[in-house]
Amino acid sequence: MRALDLTASSPDITRAICDIPSVSDHEGALADAIERAIAPLPHLEVHRDGDTIVARTDAGHAQRVVIAGHIDTVPINGNVPTRDVTIDGEPYIWGRGTVDMKAGVAVQLKLAAELVDPAVDITWMWYDHEEVAAEHSGLTRLAASRPDLFAGDFAILGEPTAGLVEGGCNGTLRAIVRTHGVRAHSARSWIGENAIHAAAPVLARLAEYRPRTISVEGLEYREGLNAVAISGGVAGNVIPDLCEVQVNFRFAPSRSEEEAVAHVRGVFEGFEVEIADLAGGARPGLDAPLAQRFLQAVGGAPRPKYGWTDVARFSRLGVPAVNYGPGDPLLAHHDEERVPVAQIEEVERGLRAWLTAR
Amino acid sequence: MRALDLTASSPDITRAICDIPSVSDHEGALADAIERAIAPLPHLEVHRDGDTIVARTDAGHAQRVVIAGHIDTVPINGNVPTRDVTIDGEPYIWGRGTVDMKAGVAVQLKLAAELVDPAVDITWMWYDHEEVAAEHSGLTRLAASRPDLFAGDFAILGEPTAGLVEGGCNGTLRAIVRTHGVRAHSARSWIGENAIHAAAPVLARLAEYRPRTISVEGLEYREGLNAVAISGGVAGNVIPDLCEVQVNFRFAPSRSEEEAVAHVRGVFEGFEVEIADLAGGARPGLDAPLAQRFLQAVGGAPRPKYGWTDVARFSRLGVPAVNYGPGDPLLAHHDEERVPVAQIEEVERGLRAWLTAR
Repeated sequence: MRALDLTASSPDITRAICDIPSVSDHEGALADAIERAIAPLPHLEVHRDGDTIVARTDAGHAQRVVIAGHIDTVPINGNVPTRDVTIDGEPYIWGRGTVDMKAGVAVQLKLAAELVDPAVDITWMWYDHEEVAAEHSGLTRLAASRPDLFAGDFAILGEPTAGLVEGGCNGTLRAIVRTHGVRAHSARSWIGENAIHAAAPVLARLAEYRPRTISVEGLEYREGLNAVAISGGVAGNVIPDLCEVQVNFRFAPSRSEEEAVAHVRGVFEGFEVEIADLAGGARPGLDAPLAQRFLQAVGGAPRPKYGWTDVARFSRLGVPAVNYGPGDPLLAHHDEERVPVAQIEEVERGLRAWLTAR
Repeated sequence: MRALDLTASSPDITRAICDIPSVSDHEGALADAIERAIAPLPHLEVHRDGDTIVARTDAGHAQRVVIAGHIDTVPINGNVPTRDVTIDGEPYIWGRGTVDMKAGVAVQLKLAAELVDPAVDITWMWYDHEEVAAEHSGLTRLAASRPDLFAGDFAILGEPTAGLVEGGCNGTLRAIVRTHGVRAHSARSWIGENAIHAAAPVLARLAEYRPRTISVEGLEYREGLNAVAISGGVAGNVIPDLCEVQVNFRFAPSRSEEEAVAHVRGVFEGFEVEIADLAGGARPGLDAPLAQRFLQAVGGAPRPKYGWTDVARFSRLGVPAVNYGPGDPLLAHHDEERVPVAQIEEVERGLRAWLTAR
């Protein structure tokens, strides 16, 4: 593997790190490449934990910001290696991870290498296992082993926001809704009870569900309740005795985790519901002074973030956090995932201006 | 291994051959034991094809009957070796294969050895790979290499019928009903279309479906339409773009295969339906003169067979066929599979009376 060249342009670094596949649970090669490029830099103190890499300046500034990005992606679907494409005259980098969120990581890597004397101290974090259950996240692991590394006055997550500032985030809950039956040979189906047929009302309630949009501190958070998986079946000639529907509820930051659980249990009243995964949202948090200065530096009005991101994790630790990164979030996880080259450069300029302003 | 003793009682032969495991694809040891016991008998002409053994008398009788049984079982689940058990004072042989269908094979082996001068010519068939996809069946192989061996005026399959005569069998069809959607990140579900939600009407139609009972030549065939598997889902945070429901339609022998397909397509009108597996049923065939004599010899009124069995194969070749064997079909494949000793003896008496009546 060629070494990462952090003197290249941030779009070129984007292509380089997208072409090192790093689907969740397979981040090792990319983490190694990042560590090899960052570890020799004398202005950074580097700590590795699994496939998470933390790099800190320690110049004794009064304020510290944390800037973080995950290095894993959802599964590749014929969209690696990356390509340069032009749509309506605009150049893009196309491929898995370009939006979510290696273009953001590329900007961070470049600035980490170049800003040897920033105006504030910076803690850079590149972490693994963001696209899977929160318990597997590199940040969960790091928060347990080195909570001190999360200290800061403000945090920025480089998740895709099309170069705008997105405040807070929705919460997310995954639950398993189960139906039960009685096995029997399908030639004598009347002896058994079909658990898959029993799931018909579960799917009907999901299909009929009308999600709400909730205003929090002036930003509009749009919710959603969806089946993300379904499974059931024993063999081609057996009446199944179990069907499991996995649902995902994305909820506004005004709902507590407990309220979100109660809502989902209410929707599926009469069915067995097991909560599999739960992460509360984060309120926008844009009233902090560093946040205000950041908004002025990068320009533009803040918007709500729909996706759950690790800003919620910082928010819970008392560190105000926003999302700011290149790429249209609507194209995250999309097979046609692609990021405008100009947006990568714009985010680089925005972050650089803020981090160097004295 | 001790040689099979075909002078033992049919219950003792049942225990002996159940204690030689013969899960599908591992029938060799049992086929060898059968061949060693049968091949030396001077009144039988023996042909072996893989683990299928055919033994024929050839005394020049005007009529020939085919009597067949499969020697494989579904997987063992702690229920081999067999045990003698007594329930409510009635003696049973307990263990894998006792019902489906080694007790039936035991009776056949004993009669094959003892009936040196039957009233009709007999073709005995003991075959492998019945409990798996039809393409692997020993009978499929034999029908290709030696179709002449299937010639006969009437056929009896020793599948478990609790010692009653079960005529014909239902057909079976498996189909995949598919719904499609558009993938998106579940945080912005309104961008995508949820294929699992789109399957709600598929499950609703299954749950509402009222199967018919259809009278064919005086026997009542009960049908059934069931989901036997469902799957869908990409990841916990992705709106799924595909959901597949596998359905199994068990249909009366009065419906042709084409009519069964049309019925299933009609039920799921508006959805993509792929036929995965199809085997027509068999009419009872009890109006044949040999069948009438058989019914008189064994006594009792015939019933319909619900499960698909190899009688359909003989029926398609123009050989009327019925199921007649010891064991409760509801206990087939059951971990508590067990056969009443009295039923084994009763089936032996019934077959012997019919095959020796002049």
